[in-house]
Amino acid sequence: MTWTLRNKLPMSLPNHFDLLATDGNARTGRLVTPHGVVRTPAFMPIGTAGAVKSVHWRQVRDAGSDIVLGNTYHLMLRPGAERIASLGGLQRFTGWNGPMLTDSGGFQVMSLSDLRKVSESAVTFRSHIDGVKVELSPERSIEVQRLLGADIAMQLDECVRLPAERADIERAMQLSLRWAERSRRAFETAPGGTMLFGIVQGGDVPELRQTSARGVVDIGFHGYAIGGLAVGEPQSVMLALVEETVPHLPAERPRYLMGVGTPEDLLEAVKRGIDMFDCVLPTRNGRHGVAFTRRGPINLRNARHADDPRPLDETSSWPSTRDCSRAYLHHLVKSGEALGAMLLSEINIAYYQALMQGIRDAISTGSFARFHEEVRAEWARGDLAPN
Amino acid sequence: MTWTLRNKLPMSLPNHFDLLATDGNARTGRLVTPHGVVRTPAFMPIGTAGAVKSVHWRQVRDAGSDIVLGNTYHLMLRPGAERIASLGGLQRFTGWNGPMLTDSGGFQVMSLSDLRKVSESAVTFRSHIDGVKVELSPERSIEVQRLLGADIAMQLDECVRLPAERADIERAMQLSLRWAERSRRAFETAPGGTMLFGIVQGGDVPELRQTSARGVVDIGFHGYAIGGLAVGEPQSVMLALVEETVPHLPAERPRYLMGVGTPEDLLEAVKRGIDMFDCVLPTRNGRHGVAFTRRGPINLRNARHADDPRPLDETSSWPSTRDCSRAYLHHLVKSGEALGAMLLSEINIAYYQALMQGIRDAISTGSFARFHEEVRAEWARGDLAPN
Repeated sequence: MTWTLRNKLPMSLPNHFDLLATDGNARTGRLVTPHGVVRTPAFMPIGTAGAVKSVHWRQVRDAGSDIVLGNTYHLMLRPGAERIASLGGLQRFTGWNGPMLTDSGGFQVMSLSDLRKVSESAVTFRSHIDGVKVELSPERSIEVQRLLGADIAMQLDECVRLPAERADIERAMQLSLRWAERSRRAFETAPGGTMLFGIVQGGDVPELRQTSARGVVDIGFHGYAIGGLAVGEPQSVMLALVEETVPHLPAERPRYLMGVGTPEDLLEAVKRGIDMFDCVLPTRNGRHGVAFTRRGPINLRNARHADDPRPLDETSSWPSTRDCSRAYLHHLVKSGEALGAMLLSEINIAYYQALMQGIRDAISTGSFARFHEEVRAEWARGDLAPN
Repeated sequence: MTWTLRNKLPMSLPNHFDLLATDGNARTGRLVTPHGVVRTPAFMPIGTAGAVKSVHWRQVRDAGSDIVLGNTYHLMLRPGAERIASLGGLQRFTGWNGPMLTDSGGFQVMSLSDLRKVSESAVTFRSHIDGVKVELSPERSIEVQRLLGADIAMQLDECVRLPAERADIERAMQLSLRWAERSRRAFETAPGGTMLFGIVQGGDVPELRQTSARGVVDIGFHGYAIGGLAVGEPQSVMLALVEETVPHLPAERPRYLMGVGTPEDLLEAVKRGIDMFDCVLPTRNGRHGVAFTRRGPINLRNARHADDPRPLDETSSWPSTRDCSRAYLHHLVKSGEALGAMLLSEINIAYYQALMQGIRDAISTGSFARFHEEVRAEWARGDLAPN
């Protein structure tokens, strides 16, 4: 493998993560950020452009979210990182006022912008909003994330969509390691208490994942992310690569599986030692009429719900899940009423957070295996019989 | 004038309206419905298809709304009146659980459906959703509104868009009177405590308004609406016709000015003796980036707000009005984030309801003239100077 650390880096970064309990490979802990404590395993709803789509911030909080993710790509283009900085940072700008992780912008550059070009120094692209040419280097990504006021920043990396040729995967992985080092150096003077996470790449090639993991751990970060998964590969491949990668990451630092996933993905990844997740699924599927529940996903567009006065889950502690009839949700979705997306998005975030709370409680009490089995059994039983 | 009552109607309908105080022509009172008390003057947000667009029901309530309006046209087509009845009525279906007024469906038939044809017996039209042919008679409109569970139902009428020929206005007004009588007869066996309002038509012709008012009062209703205004005429014409009509309505019954209006329209119509209003403006303008405030309407799309950390109104008791920066609202609106429409819609409903509370308090204390002057002076001063 070709990557080597070019110059010795300053001493290792302080650790803000307390591991409170483990149960098998599953772990529960607390991550202390400048804007508050994050209980892990944690699910981060995505506040793409300064808002969790169709959900009020108070509901994000009330649903049990400790931390949210902001997208550097969107925010640097509009309203602009310098503007957000002058308005007091993202937490104040949005009114969320809690912990926030920002991604590096790299992933959205790859998926949303036109005419992107990756060079050793940076990725250049045209904004999908106004066509303006923008350059994003590891150093600029860190600068933008600091301007946004991120509690946790991510290194810039290059993410390859799977399936891909091994040579492409390796090239991107090696570039990501060189960018990891530059990101770490650029972060040196960041405000105390803020964190920088390195990202393991390497596609679906175990050997490359191992090289990448050793590389980022060599450089040294506050926490470690596994990137480049949930990009088209089967769940079994993703979980196998998580199993392959986790042993190469230090136990005392938080581990973050980026862009994952379904409730099942989360349960299985926690079982394999992951502490943090982010995903658009709760809000995106909510906008498309799908609710995540104790009984698995439920498609409210289905005509079977049209006359059903029953709620999605009468045992839920979330008011809309317990009180809104399926008939009403069906009607709102079919009518294209904004309230349908609003209700299903909050219902889904609340389900994800209830699942994470159940996971944390189970790990704390050494009953994760039983919890894992019970939750899977409920999903497998599926939805109520039609009314 | 050609209209005469064809057969004697049963005794006059009971009165559920208590007039508590008057101040000039302005009045404050309480209207008791099966689902609760409505403080008047009252503004009714519009829950078109079973939802106030982009606003949670709890926010509609918290903003100070006592009653909302449901659209018979939308609801009879989807999800269907019989379905809503079998699900326990509109209040239970939506979870609003408070007083609800339904319109007759006539106005939307005129504005939304294709191939509509008005005959003596009914209006027939094709649904804008699926093209199905539907007949709406005065009797069917009352039946639908009873199935929906309306606390207050409206007679079917024909509303003419202004400007219009006098002959057209008169023909529609006379038809509306005959439909008023049929609506009243159809309502006779409605559940106790529910109400039926008659509608004064007559376009912009004072003489026809007078005839229509006498006609509906002859028939006898729980309350009286002025319809066919705010359909394209200047505000001065609308207010002149309100002034023309109100003296012909019984003082002890509630008076409802349909489809009105801006905050200024409301203030001026209350001054002329109106008790109830409904309008889409707070939510529609909210979706289009406009906030109604103590300082008048504010267009958040304007670039002057992009860097402005100040809230819309630091003295407001509504949290989003007081706490969200103009910069954040501007960003959400420009980005097309659903949260922008959600925040501005609730902010606008809260402003309307705060205005109505101010109006009620002023009338109660005999200080309406001063309140009227102060509110207009604040609107006239306009928005804060740019930051």
